[in-house]
Amino acid sequence: MQVTQIQWSETEEKIAKKAIAQAKEREIAALMEEVRQQADSITELDHLWHLHDFLSARRYDIDGKYDYDYPTLVFVFARLLKEGWLHRDELNGLNPEMVSKISALSRM
Amino acid sequence: MQVTQIQWSETEEKIAKKAIAQAKEREIAALMEEVRQQADSITELDHLWHLHDFLSARRYDIDGKYDYDYPTLVFVFARLLKEGWLHRDELNGLNPEMVSKISALSRM
Repeated sequence: MQVTQIQWSETEEKIAKKAIAQAKEREIAALMEEVRQQADSITELDHLWHLHDFLSARRYDIDGKYDYDYPTLVFVFARLLKEGWLHRDELNGLNPEMVSKISALSRM
Repeated sequence: MQVTQIQWSETEEKIAKKAIAQAKEREIAALMEEVRQQADSITELDHLWHLHDFLSARRYDIDGKYDYDYPTLVFVFARLLKEGWLHRDELNGLNPEMVSKISALSRM
């Protein structure tokens, strides 16, 4: 069966939502810290526009990444695992076949 | 004579360039301080995107404002005076008719 066709139980949906929320919270916290540090070291106009470019790219990336639906969530989880925002044990309770595919995808 | 047709002497061009550079330096310094303050008070994602929107608008505005040529410099000076980035006495030495029109425009 394709992982995108796996049915989610109500419990699995709750686990998934919680995992995504935790990953997003971590990523946003890291981004806020990064922006504060960049802002503190601004001493010329180019640094300001560099911060602007940085925020443009991160906004585009984050808006896309967390705008998911269940069929594609496997890929979102794999990416979040790879990027370190999600921990493997936060997927406990999900369909084992799916978790195994997420792990495999995250190592690609 | 239209102010946009006034010929600039070499001395006037130097005064104009210096005045513009001073205004830009003040505006950029104020913007850097504003960005540092906004960054320091970021506590959630919306604040980050607000900072991004703010930088987008300021970048568009500053890129346009300081991309001037001599025929339109009168309007740039008027705007900088109005916004407080330029001081009236920094125009001393320019054509008096032009300075008078800049002052008038800045009060509109």
